[in-house]
Amino acid sequence: MADNSTGVISGSALLERLSWRYACKSFDPSRTISDTDWRALEQALVLTPSSYGLQPWKFVVVTSPEVKAQLPAISWNQGQVRDGSHVVVFTARESVSEADIDRHLNRISTVRGTPLESLAGFKQMMLGSFKNPPAGFTPFGWAANQVYIALGNLMTCAAVMNIDACPMEGIVASKYDELLGLSGTGYKTVVVCVLGYRSIDDKYASQAKVRFAAADVVEYR
Amino acid sequence: MADNSTGVISGSALLERLSWRYACKSFDPSRTISDTDWRALEQALVLTPSSYGLQPWKFVVVTSPEVKAQLPAISWNQGQVRDGSHVVVFTARESVSEADIDRHLNRISTVRGTPLESLAGFKQMMLGSFKNPPAGFTPFGWAANQVYIALGNLMTCAAVMNIDACPMEGIVASKYDELLGLSGTGYKTVVVCVLGYRSIDDKYASQAKVRFAAADVVEYR
Repeated sequence: MADNSTGVISGSALLERLSWRYACKSFDPSRTISDTDWRALEQALVLTPSSYGLQPWKFVVVTSPEVKAQLPAISWNQGQVRDGSHVVVFTARESVSEADIDRHLNRISTVRGTPLESLAGFKQMMLGSFKNPPAGFTPFGWAANQVYIALGNLMTCAAVMNIDACPMEGIVASKYDELLGLSGTGYKTVVVCVLGYRSIDDKYASQAKVRFAAADVVEYR
Repeated sequence: MADNSTGVISGSALLERLSWRYACKSFDPSRTISDTDWRALEQALVLTPSSYGLQPWKFVVVTSPEVKAQLPAISWNQGQVRDGSHVVVFTARESVSEADIDRHLNRISTVRGTPLESLAGFKQMMLGSFKNPPAGFTPFGWAANQVYIALGNLMTCAAVMNIDACPMEGIVASKYDELLGLSGTGYKTVVVCVLGYRSIDDKYASQAKVRFAAADVVEYR
């Protein structure tokens, strides 16, 4: 593996990685992500940016073969959740309470040594935005949006580390909640991403990537 | 810049980039992203994965100083939208119609040479999932989720290219729609990400990053 200490890569090298990645349909069940690589991906998840920094999520990672074996039945029979190395279940806060906001403020205070008093204005701003939201806003919808930032971040991080991924919305989220013991915790399953290594015989790996032309999805002002 | 042709970097190098990034509060207005780098970021946006590959988005990129000057007033007076090099406005489809699905299928057929007839089952599956969605599902909410994948992807891509970014939910989306001429197009503003280069005097750049401990947001099964 070519590498460098700062991690900075050129745009063309980045596009090489993004073109390499695809939604892996068949993982090699014999290959596991190394501890070193997984620790980096775990930290990449932790470092995901979120609105106000509120991090309204938990990432539930399934590596147990026994639990993975139960996942295809609640995932439209897709085998990736059984054969991949790490199954990341993205969960979001069902609601956002003052306690959730305080938890974040306490963390800011701990990490930066900021007195809580000086964060009072920030707290009021956050409380206000949840109490007087725009039309159509729901706390869970907002939290789910943040979770999708984490999903986008994770897929790109995996790609630059040469690790395969398969994002999956095709799951029965309520059954995931039951199986993973999330009921009553305040977190609900949103989406899944399987990580691991492609099977050499996954025919989807060599298919041309289908995207609209840039001119059809990017406009300039 | 250290670099390599494949773009693969180690986990530690990746974390170096993710630690380097932050929500830039002050951009250097004199610095512009080069055409070469921007073309890569534009393509990174285009390559964003989405559910079913439907790409229910348009990315409206503001680089005109005249338009950028009008953005702080509809962005809670945040100056980043004026001072950054490229302001990416993420917009999502308000609804998903059969025509949207057909557009995607036609693209698959064009890119891969797949006969449209052989995509009929895929079409029915997509139509069915939008006609019989789970509770709480809305097409715009779903499309917005996909847009947040693009946001997460873009922020990570920028970080590995040593380009600064600031994600912004604090905008008046309806005013963006008006200003950018989106009304009636079927696309609505969701979120913004400013790209460019940090001012050397942005004091936020050196603040400790605040995240919950991994043990508090990552669980294993």
